Amino acid sequence: MTTDPLVVFTPSGKRGRFPVGTPVLTAARQLGVDLDSVCGGRGICSKCQITPSYGEFSKHGVTVSEDALSDWNSVEERYKSKRGLKEGRRLGCQACVQGDVVIDVPPESQVHRQVVRKAASIRAITMDPATRLYFVEVEEPDMHSPTGDLERLARALRDQWGIEGATADFSLLSRLQPVLRKGKWQVTVALYRDHRGGAPKIVEIWPGLHEGGLFGLAIDLGSTTIAAHLTDLDTGEVVASSGLMNPQIRFGEDLMSRVSYAMMNPGGDREMTRAVREALNDLAQSIAGEAGIDPALIVETVFVCNPVMHHLLLGLDPVELGQAPFALATSSSLTLPARDLDLTAINPRAQVYVLPCIAGHVGADAAAVALSEEPGKSKDLVLIVDVGTNAEILLGNTTRVLACSSPTGPAFEGAQISAGQRAAPGAIERIEIDPVTKDPRFRVIGCDLWSDDPGFAAATAATGITGICGSGIIEAVAEMRMAGLLDESGLIGSADQTGTARCIPEGRTHAYLIHDASADGGPRITVTQGDIRAIQLAKSALYAGARLLMDEMGVDRVDRVVLAGAFGAHISPKHAMVLGMIPDAPLDRVTSAGNAAGTGARIALCNIAARAEIERVVGEITKVETAIEPRFQEHFVNANAIPHKTDPFPDLAKIVTLPDVSFNQGGRGGDGEGRRRRRA
Amino acid sequence: MTTDPLVVFTPSGKRGRFPVGTPVLTAARQLGVDLDSVCGGRGICSKCQITPSYGEFSKHGVTVSEDALSDWNSVEERYKSKRGLKEGRRLGCQACVQGDVVIDVPPESQVHRQVVRKAASIRAITMDPATRLYFVEVEEPDMHSPTGDLERLARALRDQWGIEGATADFSLLSRLQPVLRKGKWQVTVALYRDHRGGAPKIVEIWPGLHEGGLFGLAIDLGSTTIAAHLTDLDTGEVVASSGLMNPQIRFGEDLMSRVSYAMMNPGGDREMTRAVREALNDLAQSIAGEAGIDPALIVETVFVCNPVMHHLLLGLDPVELGQAPFALATSSSLTLPARDLDLTAINPRAQVYVLPCIAGHVGADAAAVALSEEPGKSKDLVLIVDVGTNAEILLGNTTRVLACSSPTGPAFEGAQISAGQRAAPGAIERIEIDPVTKDPRFRVIGCDLWSDDPGFAAATAATGITGICGSGIIEAVAEMRMAGLLDESGLIGSADQTGTARCIPEGRTHAYLIHDASADGGPRITVTQGDIRAIQLAKSALYAGARLLMDEMGVDRVDRVVLAGAFGAHISPKHAMVLGMIPDAPLDRVTSAGNAAGTGARIALCNIAARAEIERVVGEITKVETAIEPRFQEHFVNANAIPHKTDPFPDLAKIVTLPDVSFNQGGRGGDGEGRRRRRA
Repeated sequence: MTTDPLVVFTPSGKRGRFPVGTPVLTAARQLGVDLDSVCGGRGICSKCQITPSYGEFSKHGVTVSEDALSDWNSVEERYKSKRGLKEGRRLGCQACVQGDVVIDVPPESQVHRQVVRKAASIRAITMDPATRLYFVEVEEPDMHSPTGDLERLARALRDQWGIEGATADFSLLSRLQPVLRKGKWQVTVALYRDHRGGAPKIVEIWPGLHEGGLFGLAIDLGSTTIAAHLTDLDTGEVVASSGLMNPQIRFGEDLMSRVSYAMMNPGGDREMTRAVREALNDLAQSIAGEAGIDPALIVETVFVCNPVMHHLLLGLDPVELGQAPFALATSSSLTLPARDLDLTAINPRAQVYVLPCIAGHVGADAAAVALSEEPGKSKDLVLIVDVGTNAEILLGNTTRVLACSSPTGPAFEGAQISAGQRAAPGAIERIEIDPVTKDPRFRVIGCDLWSDDPGFAAATAATGITGICGSGIIEAVAEMRMAGLLDESGLIGSADQTGTARCIPEGRTHAYLIHDASADGGPRITVTQGDIRAIQLAKSALYAGARLLMDEMGVDRVDRVVLAGAFGAHISPKHAMVLGMIPDAPLDRVTSAGNAAGTGARIALCNIAARAEIERVVGEITKVETAIEPRFQEHFVNANAIPHKTDPFPDLAKIVTLPDVSFNQGGRGGDGEGRRRRRA
Repeated sequence: MTTDPLVVFTPSGKRGRFPVGTPVLTAARQLGVDLDSVCGGRGICSKCQITPSYGEFSKHGVTVSEDALSDWNSVEERYKSKRGLKEGRRLGCQACVQGDVVIDVPPESQVHRQVVRKAASIRAITMDPATRLYFVEVEEPDMHSPTGDLERLARALRDQWGIEGATADFSLLSRLQPVLRKGKWQVTVALYRDHRGGAPKIVEIWPGLHEGGLFGLAIDLGSTTIAAHLTDLDTGEVVASSGLMNPQIRFGEDLMSRVSYAMMNPGGDREMTRAVREALNDLAQSIAGEAGIDPALIVETVFVCNPVMHHLLLGLDPVELGQAPFALATSSSLTLPARDLDLTAINPRAQVYVLPCIAGHVGADAAAVALSEEPGKSKDLVLIVDVGTNAEILLGNTTRVLACSSPTGPAFEGAQISAGQRAAPGAIERIEIDPVTKDPRFRVIGCDLWSDDPGFAAATAATGITGICGSGIIEAVAEMRMAGLLDESGLIGSADQTGTARCIPEGRTHAYLIHDASADGGPRITVTQGDIRAIQLAKSALYAGARLLMDEMGVDRVDRVVLAGAFGAHISPKHAMVLGMIPDAPLDRVTSAGNAAGTGARIALCNIAARAEIERVVGEITKVETAIEPRFQEHFVNANAIPHKTDPFPDLAKIVTLPDVSFNQGGRGGDGEGRRRRRA
């Protein structure tokens, strides 16, 4: 009695004995080894490439001889000559087991390969998208045993792939018959699986083997900007990223002004819905063009957005979100075809997945942050702050997760700031102010030099110095406070009071001059008293929201802070803390998660199980409503100051104690600021 | 210890003991008594009306005293004064049990009431439509425990009606919030249940209690005519019926000429799709107008149609149906929203159900006939013939059911007949020819008198005598044969040969004059040799199809014959058999089922279980393809003659043996007909 050859797969370590002549792909499937195949073992898709190893493998207890696999065959030869095949690779569906063998499955041949995220976080995404390609051979029609073409296609999916009960999107039915005949009864279908147990649905079909790939869009639909990542649904690779301004800005800069627009203008919600859908079509078109793919290959789209954007995207009047009790029309996740959102630039049968909303003020974007940052899996108490026009705030650990949102307004994004601008080349993003000379040095986006480095002028000649972006204004205000140019209440001192001519009168208040190119016709960039007030309002709102969650949790400190959002990635933790934007935490425990909402969208795009997970997690999050909570107002008022406090960062020599300065306002004497306050 | 009062419900006989004070509705629900309620017992919908009986009931062993139920209350008083309540009726949700009582549930208070079909058949339809009304009270939003309005509505359906996992049609979401607020959190929803286990779906919502009812359309979409029955989904009553010509006729009279049009004209299929969808919208509008209801209350539509109509309705190119192997794009039943078929005249969220097709030539209309006539439940071997432009034929009994279709062409519908017209007032529908005088007498639609009755001329003065309809032409041909005016081959004899001046020359053949009003400028109605040939072709096709199924079944006779189709209802079984349209059967076992396909559509509209049933039955039917079966051609050729045979109906004194006549053709001598045949 002879023993069947032993087949060992790496890296999984799965092993089993198989009769001589068993194709490697068959062995892999029987063992549950993660080896890809679109064509089902017909030697045409090349997804099942494997690398056999020869020689002694004491670790596996196997000696592999040169003839452990069947000879290189004509199918492999044809594939290699046409498309190329790496040295040492075989096609798993062609190479058959002849003796004991060790087979390596390279990452690109794994179905559920892991994609390491670009961002700082080390967590990888396991590829398991809702939509996948399947190649099938369909039985030809037989008039003596009549069944529809669709029914035979579904039967082929069942028999060849074990997929039960597949149906087709209704609008695909008209393409079925010509494509089946063009492909001579061999077709590739894109099949969408519903994570809530609905029937698998065929959303696209191609004659023969489709080799153009499948793509998905992860879209972070913000009040101000719309960011999209075009993702290869096979590899998980982001093949292009693009963004544009949300055209709804013309109806109102922040959420509440858009809700007001809908309230005041009959049909205003529909106007805004139309505008954003048009922009999404433009964005899809341009991102596909950038990647050089046919937009019809985009078969999935995931949206994350705040509740107002959510309603306006879905064609729902957001008016209820503008007043207590802030009722959402629907809070659950949604799955619907792209055509229902008029997204005609991509495949009209593309499945759109919208993450669930947490509450009327805490949207699918916050859910996406929760999916990306997983506060509920953190042993430390983590505060996650996603700063945008509205800030979403999560606080939690393995015992409990709280969420709220806070209306920071657009100041952090450079809006409502006299020299503010969005983060683009030429914008000041970093500032330091010498505490002695009170002179600034700064860096602009697009140039690595500081403004007092040699060559800075030449290096920035092309872009110029155009304004201050969100992270720049935060640093400017914090540095002004540290340099004694601001008092605790946020008042800018006069030249006399501060000892620098850069503090110049502006009306009844003062402004601090950072850069003046007006002699050459360029801009004059200052931080005005109004700018300080806008930042104070924004940071107070943010801080008050975080404090409210801490009260609810019954804590005075958090273990760590995660700054999320495109803006969060560029913010200086030190300056944010000086400013009092976020509660104190050890500086080395303040990290940036980049665009965590966008990352959450990508995770939901690439992994179907993540959809079920976030739906469950959202149900378990405790929502805290800031708008009607008296303590929020209290915290908000208390947070207005830029307090005199001892150095939170003793290791940073430069900062000791914030100067205990205080100024009267303006040049005319008297408590101008005091009067103003009374009037407010 | 006292015993709780006994409550006996009639007609169900269900009984149980309930504590004093239990509302009758509650008792009914606990016993599973079929007592309707839309408002869930709030005393506003009046669906739960019951009739208590008082006195001795020896049958039930109960004596009911006058105070067996609680006193007539203010809710009932208000209802009665506003809407009226029949004498002796109580509202089941208000009247509470006080003592032993016998409660009758009148038919109109039963949810699953039975509706006796109008047609000859005695089978009743049990009302259990897919879409029903539910009144719910929805929790108001709470910002401290935020959930979407939809989620709270779904929870109300679960808590108040036991309906799990309800979702809403996406396009309804935008109406949810205003309606919930308008109804002060009390709303009525129309909920669609999917018989294949999909989630229940809310398709419409009204503030408060909706009292306008729900309606459905059962549509028999024929090649020539489209017939619709507007049905009250609560009572099952057909509130209006209407029909119109299928506008696709302008692209081709019969199915194959429409398929040819699609083949020859790029986009021709889409033109035909547009045409039929427009007609359906017109039809829906007019039928709703006729019934005086808002078309938006039509929330269900069931379609039955042949495969070519099926594909053109669904927007599928029918080209594959025009050539072997006659592959359907899909054969399964379909459920989709009306908007996907551009049916905008009715509720755009109305659910459309299309019955499954049996084969490429045997459509959803044949499936509907099977649902209505249930050949698979017949102990006798039954032949069911649905005569239209295509005939669908079913043969079967409890052991097996066979199906085929046969291209009879439009002759039976009065098309391609010289004096042919559709069945409308003025059309000759019955004919008798005196075998001695060879003179005809006839009746026209819209008048009960025969043409030789006194007063006939006056009675028909308004409509005139305009032509011959399908049933009239069949009687005419059969009577001509019985009167010796036709020979076995179908040739009309000359005046000399037949002995009547009514046989007049027409070209090289003869025609038989039935009615001549040409002197008064009216029509001259004859049966021409061409008419005879058209009828011969049609009847041969029909007979050959039936014979083919009998061959397949291995039988020479059938036990009974059912004639279906609008035409089948008016056909004379005797004449059909003389003509050889259908195989011989005892005359009293030839019945008419009326529009059985339309009835099948109504059944599927009114009873959700019938949908699952027909889907199962269709899978079990054996399909026989006539187009490529050599025996079909053989039977077809053999069936061309109108044979000399002994009287199949010995009890009908008038018919003895068909005359053994034969004529040469035309006035010129020689075998004209023979020559013609050779040329063909």
